[in-house]
Amino acid sequence: MGVETLQSHKVHDGRLSYCRHDSAATGTPMRFSIFVPPGEGPHPVLIWLSGLTCTEDNFTTKAGAYGAAAKAGVAIVAPDTSPRGEGVADDPAYDLGQGAGFYVDATEPPWAAHFRMESYVTGDLLQALAEFPVDLARCGIFGHSMGGHGALTLALRQPELFRSVSAFAPICSPTRCEWGRKAFAAYLGADEDGWLQHDAARLIEAGAARGRFDEILVDQGLADGFLADQLKPELLEEACRATGQGLTLNRREGYDHSYFFIASFIGEHIAWHAARL
Amino acid sequence: MGVETLQSHKVHDGRLSYCRHDSAATGTPMRFSIFVPPGEGPHPVLIWLSGLTCTEDNFTTKAGAYGAAAKAGVAIVAPDTSPRGEGVADDPAYDLGQGAGFYVDATEPPWAAHFRMESYVTGDLLQALAEFPVDLARCGIFGHSMGGHGALTLALRQPELFRSVSAFAPICSPTRCEWGRKAFAAYLGADEDGWLQHDAARLIEAGAARGRFDEILVDQGLADGFLADQLKPELLEEACRATGQGLTLNRREGYDHSYFFIASFIGEHIAWHAARL
Repeated sequence: MGVETLQSHKVHDGRLSYCRHDSAATGTPMRFSIFVPPGEGPHPVLIWLSGLTCTEDNFTTKAGAYGAAAKAGVAIVAPDTSPRGEGVADDPAYDLGQGAGFYVDATEPPWAAHFRMESYVTGDLLQALAEFPVDLARCGIFGHSMGGHGALTLALRQPELFRSVSAFAPICSPTRCEWGRKAFAAYLGADEDGWLQHDAARLIEAGAARGRFDEILVDQGLADGFLADQLKPELLEEACRATGQGLTLNRREGYDHSYFFIASFIGEHIAWHAARL
Repeated sequence: MGVETLQSHKVHDGRLSYCRHDSAATGTPMRFSIFVPPGEGPHPVLIWLSGLTCTEDNFTTKAGAYGAAAKAGVAIVAPDTSPRGEGVADDPAYDLGQGAGFYVDATEPPWAAHFRMESYVTGDLLQALAEFPVDLARCGIFGHSMGGHGALTLALRQPELFRSVSAFAPICSPTRCEWGRKAFAAYLGADEDGWLQHDAARLIEAGAARGRFDEILVDQGLADGFLADQLKPELLEEACRATGQGLTLNRREGYDHSYFFIASFIGEHIAWHAARL
């Protein structure tokens, strides 16, 4: 599977590349960025999943992550949030369709043809990393908002792929918020039982990945306008408490939902993952 | 002079605000961002001047500067690069008109009416900072490319305003490169003698601000596509050598002209300024 490098920049003594490759899962070209730290490698690697409306560029330019990643010797891969382009279904709303893949494999028309982001991230994307000096046996995953939901659910559903998982302001229980219910109804259909397999709080309650992750790390800003209606970290907290899953949930006074919040704590998350990889 | 806050985010325990105010110099509303570090202040403050095509947003979102600024206890102000809006002259080229103010006061039509960026930065912008907990007696200036030219020339022309000056990939001698010659001909007219007052290398050769700055700090990437034709750090180096002006010019192997280069060394520049403020 060929990976084409679209542009490349030296940053913090490592190398940041924007790449494109063909995904069998989505049936489209897909883009991602990858930061490879200085040194020969193979390096441990973190997958970053972004939130609604984002592309592979948001984290790459705004998170200010690569200084910490260079210091920790960790690679970071940031894929786009959905398939895109001609012939790919879309919706005018910001929270459905292109830019809003929700990291599930859609089963319903018109989405099922291309919106297979779980298979893309856990399959084609990881396979593409064979072309880089990274060690997939030491892989962690993290993300923001919709991407926090993605990181949590993919790690809980496929714990053999990931050694560590953290999130910023994740959608903790998509079956119990409007963003998630709208997306799951469109992508997964009317049967709500199936939705539970893509809901982090519900997965933990059902015992997914039990004993696999010593701790899950979550940071949540208390000035985040989506906190009460969409994100609901208390549901994740309750699920972890009920099942004995380790959780560190940092409630951060005054921080909002923006990349300024992420930039403030990304260094801590990278160091936390590095200690586990 | 009222400053309106358009949006505001907590970041690295400080506060980042996007602001708008009316400038008498440009006769337009102008935008800037300001990061105020944690603590009561008044804080020393750095003015960041951006490059061609930038607004107040590029540095703010891409430089990853606020962790280092919070640690050093330094405020950072990043203004837009030109007046904008209805009735403001423009040019279809990226290197003239809106987004390309070059930090001079234009004397020629149609630019003279609004393109007065030297007066704006050294006058109205600094005055607007009275509304923030910053100490203008401890003010430094830095910038990138066209904004590196701006930082150097404003510090050399008005050294009483600034205690320290540094630059990333500055246009070191605009009278001797195409970007500068095009802009100066448009903004300042055909008399090239007047241009020399806005050329950092020529100002140093003429003795501007002699003895005022112990050192000027410049970082320049060696993989920067504009290095040979537009930036010409060797002309700054020669001028400093000839006059005894202290200069640290770091030539950085493999780095290009992008914000990834800036992000890699912004922490060093902030610490360097903080030691002088």
